[in-house]
Amino acid sequence: MSGTERPQITTHEEVMFFDTDCAGVVNNIAYLRMIETCRTRLAAVMGMDLAGMSRTQLFPVVHRTEIDYRRPAKLADRLAIHGRLGRLQRARFWCEFEMRREGDDQLLITCRQSLALVQMPAGRPVRLPEAWMKWEGE
Amino acid sequence: MSGTERPQITTHEEVMFFDTDCAGVVNNIAYLRMIETCRTRLAAVMGMDLAGMSRTQLFPVVHRTEIDYRRPAKLADRLAIHGRLGRLQRARFWCEFEMRREGDDQLLITCRQSLALVQMPAGRPVRLPEAWMKWEGE
Amino acid sequence: MSGTERPQITTHEEVMFFDTDCAGVVNNIAYLRMIETCRTRLAAVMGMDLAGMSRTQLFPVVHRTEIDYRRPAKLADRLAIHGRLGRLQRARFWCEFEMRREGDDQLLITCRQSLALVQMPAGRPVRLPEAWMKWEGE
Amino acid sequence: MSGTERPQITTHEEVMFFDTDCAGVVNNIAYLRMIETCRTRLAAVMGMDLAGMSRTQLFPVVHRTEIDYRRPAKLADRLAIHGRLGRLQRARFWCEFEMRREGDDQLLITCRQSLALVQMPAGRPVRLPEAWMKWEGE
Repeated sequence: MSGTERPQITTHEEVMFFDTDCAGVVNNIAYLRMIETCRTRLAAVMGMDLAGMSRTQLFPVVHRTEIDYRRPAKLADRLAIHGRLGRLQRARFWCEFEMRREGDDQLLITCRQSLALVQMPAGRPVRLPEAWMKWEGE
Repeated sequence: MSGTERPQITTHEEVMFFDTDCAGVVNNIAYLRMIETCRTRLAAVMGMDLAGMSRTQLFPVVHRTEIDYRRPAKLADRLAIHGRLGRLQRARFWCEFEMRREGDDQLLITCRQSLALVQMPAGRPVRLPEAWMKWEGE
Repeated sequence: MSGTERPQITTHEEVMFFDTDCAGVVNNIAYLRMIETCRTRLAAVMGMDLAGMSRTQLFPVVHRTEIDYRRPAKLADRLAIHGRLGRLQRARFWCEFEMRREGDDQLLITCRQSLALVQMPAGRPVRLPEAWMKWEGE
Repeated sequence: MSGTERPQITTHEEVMFFDTDCAGVVNNIAYLRMIETCRTRLAAVMGMDLAGMSRTQLFPVVHRTEIDYRRPAKLADRLAIHGRLGRLQRARFWCEFEMRREGDDQLLITCRQSLALVQMPAGRPVRLPEAWMKWEGE
């Protein structure tokens, strides 16, 4: 990804047994795992891949999650999770997610998360990189 | 629990290895599992225990979660999760949670969830029990 | 897959934060989730995909797992999980798994699982399909 | 715990929605989480509690798991997990687990795990404490 286009990515999941519960649908917690995978790949698009984080010990830390469960996913459903960078502030940024079932394109989940960058092991929040601010202009 | 006192409960967890991640703190997703345990016990206080749900196939279904990660918990921390019934509407109710570290009583997590009652397997939402409305007066 | 070649498949994972624990390596439990994903795709190769299972309510059920943790995986590692059908008996079959780190090809995990086919909701074990027996000749 | 009696402990779980899958029973992976909780408390009985591990960075690391799924647990089941120290070798020890449903006392799961003590962050295995050898005499 380059230029000032707002970072985004789509990841894909197939609903496994371990994602579901005995109500016959995907358990609430499993959606958060799928969103974490999407967010991790979105961070890579923004220049922070997992290997880099391991090296620099600079991590994006979630401060708030808002998630709406609109329709349930079921075993064997193929899901597309679309993540995009939202609003950027001085020391905080938002990521926005939509999860749809492939095939019928039904919207299942919407979610937004605010994050900060934290330098470990001190746990000190740091300013967002200046280079990210180009995306705020969009 | 009886009378018109708003239902509440406190559950307890000790942070295990599987709750943490390599950033050295509890992973975001693990808090949701702890909150689901608290919510399940709160539902029992409200007259809907797991055995009853299995029998009636009437389940509380989460529609929205808002969670704020205020301070991280660490391995071996003992956590108290306090859940209480919040606002009741015709077909929707809210539960509110606070998670604190025992010992220093630091507030780590606040969370609220809206739920509906759904009759399975049809997946049909039903009105909240009339008997619950006494709690709205509080 | 066709003919009498023993069914096999390789799935791929990238180690996420939720896979790791605060010892800095992948938690034992996370490997089992990766193996379940591989086993599910192996079952599809054998003619039992998730959508089919949902329809027929005939499920492979794990009876025994043996897993050896040889070397730990870490955040950002890319893993290849190779699964293959092992020995077939009248009503039981074995699957065998090897997990390697891509890049240095280090062997991290070996695992074997025995499974039966169970007809739900009765929970009754059934004989393996006659068509599977061609693989035992290998 | 004192003396030469072989360390043992019983932990308790109530099956939650997140423990189950859409086959209507507890997912294989969830049993491993319950066993990890039991093993952690067993380690505390043996003198290695989580807070101590955090301080010394000396961790028990699982090398092998063997688990037999004998009968399935279901939503709302109350489970008792009994763990005990098994055989001790120079640098390796075994823990043995049995999981039973409370009420009918049915045996659901048997499991054994071999572990080593590893000094982090170097990842170096160390000899078992001399004091543990008293338990081998049993």
